[in-house]
Amino acid sequence: MDGTVKRVRVKTSGGSYDVVVGPGALRHAPEMRDLLGRDVCAMIVNETVQGLHGAYIRSCFEGLGEFRTHIMPDGEEYKSFPQAERAFDWMLASGISRRSTVVGIGGGVTGDFSGFLAALFMRGIPIIHVPTTLLAMVDSSVGGKVAVNISAGKNIIGAFHQPALVVADIDFLGTLPDNELRNGLAEALKHAFIGENALFELFEKGDFDSIRKAESLMEIVYRSALFKSSVVERDEREGGLRAILNFGHTVGHAVESLLEYRGISHGQAVALGMAAELEISVRAGLLDRAHARRCTELLERYGLRIRRAGLDVDGLMAHMKYDKKTSLGRARFALLSGPGKPVYDREVLDDVVRAVLADTIVTGG
Amino acid sequence: MDGTVKRVRVKTSGGSYDVVVGPGALRHAPEMRDLLGRDVCAMIVNETVQGLHGAYIRSCFEGLGEFRTHIMPDGEEYKSFPQAERAFDWMLASGISRRSTVVGIGGGVTGDFSGFLAALFMRGIPIIHVPTTLLAMVDSSVGGKVAVNISAGKNIIGAFHQPALVVADIDFLGTLPDNELRNGLAEALKHAFIGENALFELFEKGDFDSIRKAESLMEIVYRSALFKSSVVERDEREGGLRAILNFGHTVGHAVESLLEYRGISHGQAVALGMAAELEISVRAGLLDRAHARRCTELLERYGLRIRRAGLDVDGLMAHMKYDKKTSLGRARFALLSGPGKPVYDREVLDDVVRAVLADTIVTGG
Repeated sequence: MDGTVKRVRVKTSGGSYDVVVGPGALRHAPEMRDLLGRDVCAMIVNETVQGLHGAYIRSCFEGLGEFRTHIMPDGEEYKSFPQAERAFDWMLASGISRRSTVVGIGGGVTGDFSGFLAALFMRGIPIIHVPTTLLAMVDSSVGGKVAVNISAGKNIIGAFHQPALVVADIDFLGTLPDNELRNGLAEALKHAFIGENALFELFEKGDFDSIRKAESLMEIVYRSALFKSSVVERDEREGGLRAILNFGHTVGHAVESLLEYRGISHGQAVALGMAAELEISVRAGLLDRAHARRCTELLERYGLRIRRAGLDVDGLMAHMKYDKKTSLGRARFALLSGPGKPVYDREVLDDVVRAVLADTIVTGG
Repeated sequence: MDGTVKRVRVKTSGGSYDVVVGPGALRHAPEMRDLLGRDVCAMIVNETVQGLHGAYIRSCFEGLGEFRTHIMPDGEEYKSFPQAERAFDWMLASGISRRSTVVGIGGGVTGDFSGFLAALFMRGIPIIHVPTTLLAMVDSSVGGKVAVNISAGKNIIGAFHQPALVVADIDFLGTLPDNELRNGLAEALKHAFIGENALFELFEKGDFDSIRKAESLMEIVYRSALFKSSVVERDEREGGLRAILNFGHTVGHAVESLLEYRGISHGQAVALGMAAELEISVRAGLLDRAHARRCTELLERYGLRIRRAGLDVDGLMAHMKYDKKTSLGRARFALLSGPGKPVYDREVLDDVVRAVLADTIVTGG
């Protein structure tokens, strides 16, 4: 399906780039020709995406340049520091040069990994992100954060490397499983909660069945890219304001760490985190309880759970201390000070956090 | 020995930093206190430097903060991608946070490696470079290039990460062996050849014995920092002008690669490279032969050889093709178009390069 694409222009310290959004967007980004025609390119493609959409991808890139393809298996374990070294060896052996461009096609893991390769190869070559999951489209593909994992921690090692282009081709979402769609909706709902009011309205009017239509998904991706880019433009390297995007993530990351990233998606963990941090905002006297309820009602409407059995409060507290957003061992939160009004860098007393976790997201057995 | 320090202010896209130059400079950089006092710091120290100057270093940093020290053995092999992963694990286990600062104390290898750690740890934390060799003081500590080696190549993987501060304490040079001093003089002579005229005069008036005095070394480091920073300020990420700093390096890197980096210092390889590239400049009709002779005479006066037995011309030609400054497989050179007048990005016919190598730097068995 081809259709009209929308564009978001993102300004960065080193220039600007476009996010091209729409069904068939890969055929509507003529700037790819210039980026891909200078020298042989490195294409990093997720294995599942290659299986489902290999022929489509080939047809979109045909005639635009010469490519070497590295297939990345599913799974966070392939986004590791040692895997990066293997990929660098492969790039060098494949004739990738400082005039080459990297193309990353897949979800957030593929985007992080291919962006990391592009950031460091010969001290930085351009990257085109082609996110194929809703989560990568609404969140990780915009903003230039790239990273790999080391044994001691996830996303500890990385860089800010702004892309040359992002192509969010909505057609890829046609094959995305429901739970993966929900995974992305959590971050889009976060944007709705922290200030993207048009998105809030869209979510309030719709339901899971209505928003999975291509037009709605395009609007969700477009609005999210617009919102996130407006934040990162004002704070490219997370010195301050960008921290509002961590709403739901202080608790969310603790949940993921405690569960060792097994059996829970990032979006579902962030949804639990938002439920907790909405309640913290209420108890801190910043947010009206009625509005917090409207938000948690939306999380549930879109299939995201706001409670989970068997989470250990002490364990969550311990993991929060080690989150890399903390400084000097104290957890800091992005909170809401009103509907669509985020604040950041707020210290909250451990006792308050502990009580909120026990009262809200953690249920017995 | 304490003395007056000089400062060079370097402007970068993300702010500015100072290079503090002089005997006892480590005691004359009060901004260290602010950088080091925020959280526990990672100090990366070369083993030999620690042995010779450990007590001095301890006394300079005493009371400025809390430190964890990682000792780096001598040798390029410790500046590797897998060693970086081990260091990252160590940093995390040592409580290094995004508010921490890295301090790199040693030569170019230590600077590259510690800068690489700082560039990537939690997507970038500040680094203070404390170069202890003349080569690191006049060249690698200024400009923000950091890198590690992978098995397939040297300095292929890296970033631009501008330091927060550079402290070139001339007192460290008191224990530097003569061959290490010459290693640094080669890059300082390069600055003299490509436009630092005061440095050219200093070298023309002096000899190896006169310039090894602290006042002369301070002037050489100060002038080099001033010159190099004026170039990198105009072209931080090597889009163009910065390539003039590669004068002598296209051939020099080929010499190093051919010899597999054994039995030749970087400075000596660059000296051979400059001898060849001066001659290429002459044959290209850009440079007067008399001036080229003045330059090669200076190289020899400071103990740098301009010929070497047993280098294979075909081997050198092959290695030049793979230099990362080439694009599409053709070697490009920085040349001189007159005394102190560098030009860059010049393609030279293979036949000319081959003849120059055979006629100048390569001597029979």
